[in-house]
Formats: sequence, C-alpha cells, structure tokens
Amino acid sequence: MKKYNVAIVGATGAVGQELLKVLRERNFPVGELRLLASSRSAGKTMEHAGETYTIGLTDAQAFQGIDIALFAGGSASTEFAQAAVDAGAVVIDNSSAFRMNPDVPLVVPEVNPEDVDWHKGIIANPNCSTIIMAVALKPIHDAAKIQRVVVSTYQAVSGAGKEGITELTEQTRQVLAGEAIAPQVFAHPIAFNLIPHIDVFQDGDYTKEEWKMIKETQKIMHEPSMKITATTVRVPVYRSHSESINLELEQPLSAAEAKEVLAKAPGVIVVDDVTQKKYPMPIDTSDHDEVYVGRIREDKTVTYGLNLWVVADQIRKGAATNAIQIAETLIARHKL
Amino acid sequence: MKKYNVAIVGATGAVGQELLKVLRERNFPVGELRLLASSRSAGKTMEHAGETYTIGLTDAQAFQGIDIALFAGGSASTEFAQAAVDAGAVVIDNSSAFRMNPDVPLVVPEVNPEDVDWHKGIIANPNCSTIIMAVALKPIHDAAKIQRVVVSTYQAVSGAGKEGITELTEQTRQVLAGEAIAPQVFAHPIAFNLIPHIDVFQDGDYTKEEWKMIKETQKIMHEPSMKITATTVRVPVYRSHSESINLELEQPLSAAEAKEVLAKAPGVIVVDDVTQKKYPMPIDTSDHDEVYVGRIREDKTVTYGLNLWVVADQIRKGAATNAIQIAETLIARHKL
Repeated sequence: MKKYNVAIVGATGAVGQELLKVLRERNFPVGELRLLASSRSAGKTMEHAGETYTIGLTDAQAFQGIDIALFAGGSASTEFAQAAVDAGAVVIDNSSAFRMNPDVPLVVPEVNPEDVDWHKGIIANPNCSTIIMAVALKPIHDAAKIQRVVVSTYQAVSGAGKEGITELTEQTRQVLAGEAIAPQVFAHPIAFNLIPHIDVFQDGDYTKEEWKMIKETQKIMHEPSMKITATTVRVPVYRSHSESINLELEQPLSAAEAKEVLAKAPGVIVVDDVTQKKYPMPIDTSDHDEVYVGRIREDKTVTYGLNLWVVADQIRKGAATNAIQIAETLIARHKL
Repeated sequence: MKKYNVAIVGATGAVGQELLKVLRERNFPVGELRLLASSRSAGKTMEHAGETYTIGLTDAQAFQGIDIALFAGGSASTEFAQAAVDAGAVVIDNSSAFRMNPDVPLVVPEVNPEDVDWHKGIIANPNCSTIIMAVALKPIHDAAKIQRVVVSTYQAVSGAGKEGITELTEQTRQVLAGEAIAPQVFAHPIAFNLIPHIDVFQDGDYTKEEWKMIKETQKIMHEPSMKITATTVRVPVYRSHSESINLELEQPLSAAEAKEVLAKAPGVIVVDDVTQKKYPMPIDTSDHDEVYVGRIREDKTVTYGLNLWVVADQIRKGAATNAIQIAETLIARHKL
C-alpha cells in the first residue's frame, strides 16, 4: 500500500491534536509524519503513538517531500499554504482563507466528493457549523429539494480552541466560588451564559460565522441561490455544536421519510425516539465522527416543512475528521 | 388608596418567592398577605419584608376574604382555583391548566390588556417562553403583520424551579471534580450539555412546551391562524430564557424600523450595537422585568423577513412580573 508523507501545520492546537488522533484511528497510510507549529512551539517535543516528535518550525522550507499538508487553521494558511503547494504537497486547509475562492474546492466528502478532482493544490475544509449542517441537509435535499433553511446554532467553547475550554472551566469554578471573572477568549462571560456572537460582525449585522454557514453551504451543495439564514450562538458546552434547523422543501417529505433517508445517509446517525427520551445531545456525540440528527418533525406552517435538531463533534467531523476524509477521498479518486 | 387582600399559592417555590418580591418592588396595594403552600410547607414560617408569616395550607377554606389569588403553578391550580373563585377571589394562575380554556383570558398586559375585562374569575398567565416572545412580537406585528414565526429557544434551568438550579450547580461541581452524576430533575445531564426536550412529548413529536409557544401565542395575539413553529431546548444557564426568532412579515419593515418600533414598545429594551459587542445575554437580563431584543437583522431569504435574539428573565417577566401586571391591569381597568 502506498504511503504518504503528511505534515500537520499547527500540530499543538486543539484541531492539530485531533488531526493526529484521527489519522491514527483511521489507519491513514502515513509515511513520514512531520509536525509543524509557530516559533512559540517549534523545537519542543511531542509524544504521539509511542513516538517522540520534535515540532518543526512552519516556514517555506518545511514542506520538502511532503505529499499532504494538513493546515489546522489560523494565519499559517495565508502565509505558507502556497509554499506547501509549490513544494509539491496538496494542502487541505482548515482556515477560512481560501474557502470562497472559486479556484479552491470546498469539500464535505459525504456531500461533494467529486469536487476534489479539480483542485489546484489547495482544498478547503469548511467551517465546523457548516460541515455539520451540510451532512444533515444533503440526503434531504436529494430527496425533496431544500428551498429555504433557517438555522440557529448552539456552539461549544472548543470552537475557540483549547483556550476556550480553559476559559469555560476557569470561569465556571470562579462563578461557583463567587469570585470575579475576567473574560479573555470570549467577548463576555461564557460560564452559565450565552453569547449570540461568533467571529466578527459583517454585512447586515450578520457575523462572519453566520455568513460562513450561508455562503459555504451554497458552495458545497452547488446551490448558489439556496435560501439560508442563520443565527449563531456560543453556549457553555465543552464540545459538539448543535443546530436547530427549519427547512422548507419543494417536494413532500414526511417525518418518517426524512428519518429513512437520513438513516441511510453516509456519516449520519438518527437518534430520534422521543418515547424513550432519545435525541442527540453534545455529551453523547463528542469524540464521534458522525453527525447525529433527531427531533425530526413536520412543520405544517409551510407546504412542505421539516424541523431537525443536529449535533456533532465540531473538532472531529467539523474539522479534523472531515480534513482526513478529504485526503482519503483524494486517494480513492486517484487525485494525489 | 384601596388595598387588596392577596393570597400566594405555592409561596415557597421559585415563582412564589418572586411573586412576593415583585409585589413589594412594585408597591402593589396589598392589604392582607396570605402565604399558602402544600402540607409539606404549611405551618412553617417565612420572613418577608421584615415580617414573619406562617405558611397556611392550601385548601378550599383558605381563600375567605381574599381579593386576588396568585397561583404560582402546579397541581394546586386544578385542585383549588375554582374554590378561590367561589370564595370571591380573582385567580391569576401561572399553571397551564386553564390557558387554552376559551372561557379564560390569557393575558400579557403589553399585548392584550383588554382581555382581562371578560374574565369569569380566572385569568391565566402564559407560559414563560410564550410571554417573552409575545412582548417582542407585538410591536412588530402592529407595524408589519407577522405571517410566520420560526423560534428556537435556549431555556434556563430555573424554568424547572429551585430544584433545576440546584441540579445545575451540583452537576457542574461533580463534572469539574470528575465525579459521576445522576440526573434527577432533568431527563439527562444538564451541566455542560443541552437537552432538546422541555415538558412532555405530544402531537407530531413536538413537546408540550413547543405547543404552548404556538397555541398560546396565537390566543394572546388574537391570531388563531398565525403560523408558528418552535424547537425548545434546555441550556446550562441559571436564569433568563433566550429565543432566536425568525419572522416573515406581510409588509416591509427594515431592521432600522424594527429597532425603532421595538425601542418605543412597552416592556421592551433594545440592546443592539454590534460595533460595541452589545446584544442581550442571560447574565445581563436576570432580575429585570423587561424583554431585551437585539441582533435585529433583515432576512433577505423571504420578501420581508427579520431575525431577532430575545432574552428575558423567565421567572420575572415570564411568570411573576406578568402575573402582578395582570393584577395591576385589573385594577386600572376597574375589573376587580
């Protein structure tokens, strides 16, 4: 079996760590594994799968001999993705830098695997909330054509990396102890609170996170005029994003039929037995690769409507797993 | 000034305690104050405003001489509301028992104060999430006629009473300490989790909480065919319910115009300055009587659409404050 030399850029962060874990879990055919980070971490060592790796510095020379460069996100992508491509690597990039670039495929393997075929060196991994939604929408769109999406999110603090997790723990302890808190990662206290603001504000007072869910979904689904509106909210949950999704369909699809097409869809697990109080919840979906869908109900306020409650681990399927699946898709389609 | 003899049924619970607090804060013209509870609490004493009250037993004889009986909720309403009416009291009832009874007005004073006029002894206080939504929708409906509402909620644990608060605190401590947890009040763990299930499941796999938001809003707004769909979710927040609301309007209303009509509306405070990261959040709205509205945005996926983020203290405006305002409305309209 052919092996591939893999670089992970941003190996010390939350997504970088998960990329390492997922590569191993999925038995990805790794030849050389090169862990890269910024000057803050370069030179340090890291244990992985019983081996000790020295973290290399991410620079233009770091990608010689690399087949696949997995960028975990952040400013390294704009600085070094092209250098990695020039060195002969295919870049799978988790930042938002290239996602809307018409020369860059934006891929969720369950939705648009064929888009890896036309890559020019960089393939973008979509935003976490977008990936989760797209996996749930695809089988419904295929069955009954989605006309409009209204989504409200409930997003975990780990969407802001390890620092988000630490901030929730620290603040929670402080609130329980009656101590004063001083937000650093988030704009406001997150312990026992909700912050209806993720990423920066842009056009029409929508946040960049909200625009990502709209524009990226349209690109992934190849439906540039699909109507989507979004409200994104940070919640005091460690891991797994949840989404309350209302759909208007062009064709009829009963709740029972929706359950059926979702249950058969790749990467989807239906958890929907209200008589047994079963529905997806963040604590049950974390550390899993699938997108969980429940609370599947007809919405009779439109001709053909559905409500869904969708939950998935946004560091796994929303980032690391999806990136590795893109690499697997490249291999399967002989594009690497 | 005329004074009124007031009974509080369920005085020891979360809503009962808040009723006491709000009565005092608003200088409600209380003559005799009679605190009632079940046999579990009857006979105990309670301090309030420097006086000691002995809790009386709620029974058919407990309402002699009472003008206004405030029922905090629960089974006491079905058991004793009629006895209170027979004794000559007007009942303002916070349970769900009478809300959809066509002989019982369901009142949010900012929305339908005139409905107190036709009461036959009982006036129902709506569900907390419903009150909060109705206060925010009314000025928009008056300005541009709402055709459809898609709402997703983020509901605090105190919606389940004092026990809900204790459970969140206990479980949070246990999770931080790495100890096992055993849910009692909620069906699943609530610390660092989300539960998309409030009240029992009913028709179409909607919960009773979701049906309350639909049916009660239609009754309060006098719009039995207003299209409303809802998904209700419990979040690990102590107090104040939040709601992500998408509206389709019959007539145009820009975000700027919506802000203007909301800012002028009774009981509403607009908090919407994204350049300053200002929007409503549970920690800022708790212990306040108003409904806070922010993230006001046009939704261009429909002809005339709006998104709103609405937050309010569900024990105050969502329960106790609204009940006292109903009593004040009765007095102002000479119906008591």
